[in-house]
Amino acid sequence: MSLTIKLTISPRIINLNCHERNRTKFPAIRPKPIYHSNALNPILYSNKRPGMFQASVSGTVIKSSLIEPDGGVLVDVIVPESERGSKTLEAESLPKARLAKIDVEWVHVISEGWASPLKGFMRENEYLQSLHFNSLRMENGTVVNMSLPIVLAIDDETKESIGSSKDVGLVGPEGDLLAILRSIEIYKHNKEERIARTWGTTAPGLPYVEEFIAPAGNWLLGGDLEVLKPIKYNDGLDHYRLSPKQLRKEFDRRQADAVFAFQLRNPVHNGHALLMNDTRRRLLEMGYKNPILLLHPLGGFTKADDVPLDVRMEQHSKVLEDGVLDPETTIVAVFPSPMHYAGPTEVQWHAKARVNAGANFYIVGRDPAGMGHPTEKRDLYDPDHGKKVLSMAPGLEKLNILPFRVAAYDTVAKKMAFFDPSRSKEFLFISGTKVGTIYLIS
Amino acid sequence: MSLTIKLTISPRIINLNCHERNRTKFPAIRPKPIYHSNALNPILYSNKRPGMFQASVSGTVIKSSLIEPDGGVLVDVIVPESERGSKTLEAESLPKARLAKIDVEWVHVISEGWASPLKGFMRENEYLQSLHFNSLRMENGTVVNMSLPIVLAIDDETKESIGSSKDVGLVGPEGDLLAILRSIEIYKHNKEERIARTWGTTAPGLPYVEEFIAPAGNWLLGGDLEVLKPIKYNDGLDHYRLSPKQLRKEFDRRQADAVFAFQLRNPVHNGHALLMNDTRRRLLEMGYKNPILLLHPLGGFTKADDVPLDVRMEQHSKVLEDGVLDPETTIVAVFPSPMHYAGPTEVQWHAKARVNAGANFYIVGRDPAGMGHPTEKRDLYDPDHGKKVLSMAPGLEKLNILPFRVAAYDTVAKKMAFFDPSRSKEFLFISGTKVGTIYLIS
Repeated sequence: MSLTIKLTISPRIINLNCHERNRTKFPAIRPKPIYHSNALNPILYSNKRPGMFQASVSGTVIKSSLIEPDGGVLVDVIVPESERGSKTLEAESLPKARLAKIDVEWVHVISEGWASPLKGFMRENEYLQSLHFNSLRMENGTVVNMSLPIVLAIDDETKESIGSSKDVGLVGPEGDLLAILRSIEIYKHNKEERIARTWGTTAPGLPYVEEFIAPAGNWLLGGDLEVLKPIKYNDGLDHYRLSPKQLRKEFDRRQADAVFAFQLRNPVHNGHALLMNDTRRRLLEMGYKNPILLLHPLGGFTKADDVPLDVRMEQHSKVLEDGVLDPETTIVAVFPSPMHYAGPTEVQWHAKARVNAGANFYIVGRDPAGMGHPTEKRDLYDPDHGKKVLSMAPGLEKLNILPFRVAAYDTVAKKMAFFDPSRSKEFLFISGTKVGTIYLIS
Repeated sequence: MSLTIKLTISPRIINLNCHERNRTKFPAIRPKPIYHSNALNPILYSNKRPGMFQASVSGTVIKSSLIEPDGGVLVDVIVPESERGSKTLEAESLPKARLAKIDVEWVHVISEGWASPLKGFMRENEYLQSLHFNSLRMENGTVVNMSLPIVLAIDDETKESIGSSKDVGLVGPEGDLLAILRSIEIYKHNKEERIARTWGTTAPGLPYVEEFIAPAGNWLLGGDLEVLKPIKYNDGLDHYRLSPKQLRKEFDRRQADAVFAFQLRNPVHNGHALLMNDTRRRLLEMGYKNPILLLHPLGGFTKADDVPLDVRMEQHSKVLEDGVLDPETTIVAVFPSPMHYAGPTEVQWHAKARVNAGANFYIVGRDPAGMGHPTEKRDLYDPDHGKKVLSMAPGLEKLNILPFRVAAYDTVAKKMAFFDPSRSKEFLFISGTKVGTIYLIS
């Protein structure tokens, strides 16, 4: 049984603008979602540890066939099962820092190597480079992209309780020991400067700032992570949370000769689908034999008026089931990072993390990671700055950037098509015009 | 006749903190300054054009013996005298943009190559890279430092009057045609974002912002400069305004094998002098035979409570005359850039510009280009961030960074000395203690 909801698409969405600029609330009434296991590759989506994959070659280092992870080696700081007991005992003996939910999302991100070569929460040198240069210089002189500060804030009390200890145990919101932070460094959390340099504004109302930075402590705690066991959410979606290592393995198993990643945090609409299918067609024309699409919704914190993850995963699953995207050449997985809504700064993070997962092509939209200005009636970022900044970003030279092409409803062909300026009158950009179908719930 | 004024030095200044954190006004009563011509090298300080130097080797390209300018070639966009007439005629026929005084300072800076490889006011690609990465990637893949946006703001009316013209004539505040801007590009001037990313705050009261950005237009005009004649100020100090080309020639003429630059915007005090002399001693110990000090006061816009340039030049001149610094191994010249007071972001500019002038060592102070927070009772920047950020800055790897050592009054030796923590009680950091002599007026 399949229920298709026809939605009215605003012209901004026709313009392939992913974010809900008008902050229209998602319809409040929705059926309970049903979670699909991904039909593409049951082995891959099992909850077994990466090393247990049938497809794995025991003892070999997992590396990209297509693109190297930043720093050359994919970071994996999850403690091997054999050492878990002793490390947990040690962690119990250490001074503790309590993690908020958002911190756990970052522990997850770091632990699987999305932020490679970052091995833990940033120390001050990394933080400053991130804030000022959006990149890190490695010891060998190479530069990797690192546009968002990935930091752990602590309050005065925690700082005092840590004292001169070199290592700290990290405790989850439920009180469970999650990780050890090694060779720590504590430095000042200048919130104003962090916000100004990350968002390019200090206006009140930035979702990540209001939720997580404003109430956070005045110190940052950096160090190398050892995560006691893989982070799980037990929300029925963990099987979608494939690590970079798992994704790279799957790309290799499918013998992909190009991987193009598509970041989204809202339902796939027909304009997206057109774009993704067209990208594949163009890659084939370029001579690639087997381009694979990584359809990669963001699964961490999003603002209240974005569509919830469970609904999105239902929708993405349906898109594949209905053949709008080809299941043979598409992998749907969840990117565990939280959203900053930091526009040109954040789009670099979105692209860099996908490099670490093995993608060598990245589709960048209009105004990626953008939103409306929190206090003024305008976009917070120039909608073109995202793709411009991304195309010039240090450390991302090896990534192929594919800018969005503008799609609109072609009244002659009676379908979504890429806008052709020579017959502009035949395309519909008018607000309220029905141009798309969003597959919502099966 | 020499008048020496003993000044009470606050402990912050003892700590070699260049800026007037307490915003103490400079004594209002001061004798009329007398301008010295620099005694070191009368030929060098003549007002003749660079090509007229006796020491010049006619027809050879001026290049650093010690360090390459950024981009490999020192930018010089001053129109040769032979073409001045025709270019001026052409400029008169073009749409015009009016320059503010601050814009003329930047025209000066660009025209002589301090900002090499920048050949004009930034186009959007350069602006975005500067804002986000503090650096520019060149066509050959190399990276140069570029931390401050060097931009020209215009208002709606000017934008409209330019229309679709490719070139624009730039008119000085007095109405005189100064330059042509070629192959222009007009893009949005998002002041909030520019301020936030440059200063790390949007708090009201930043001197450069209040004076120049707040009242500026909403568009930025980028393009390649052709400057119709060298910028002069006719304030009796033009002979101090040596171009990077002139400085490089002079370093070569003196057969310098190391050039260490010292940026300042206040009088030299004994702590500075100790530091500069000690740096020379250390360079000699390192094996250099002839290290030359570039004592390089900033000559462009400074905030109202900084010491005026004419007084500072008097003072610096006196310091040399009295042998506090050795005239044989010191060059005093004016750096024509305006101040942003943008701390870690700006210190990169200060260092990069000196690389272009041929310096291969740069002395960085505590809290360089810093100031008090405009609305809060704290430093705007962490005083250690300047040297940390500078030491990691992209494009400045080739520059040797010399961090300040902390000096204080040694009560045993009865003079300024580098602070020795093992006998900390013998050093005076107490406010109001007389520890230094500032040579002010001769």
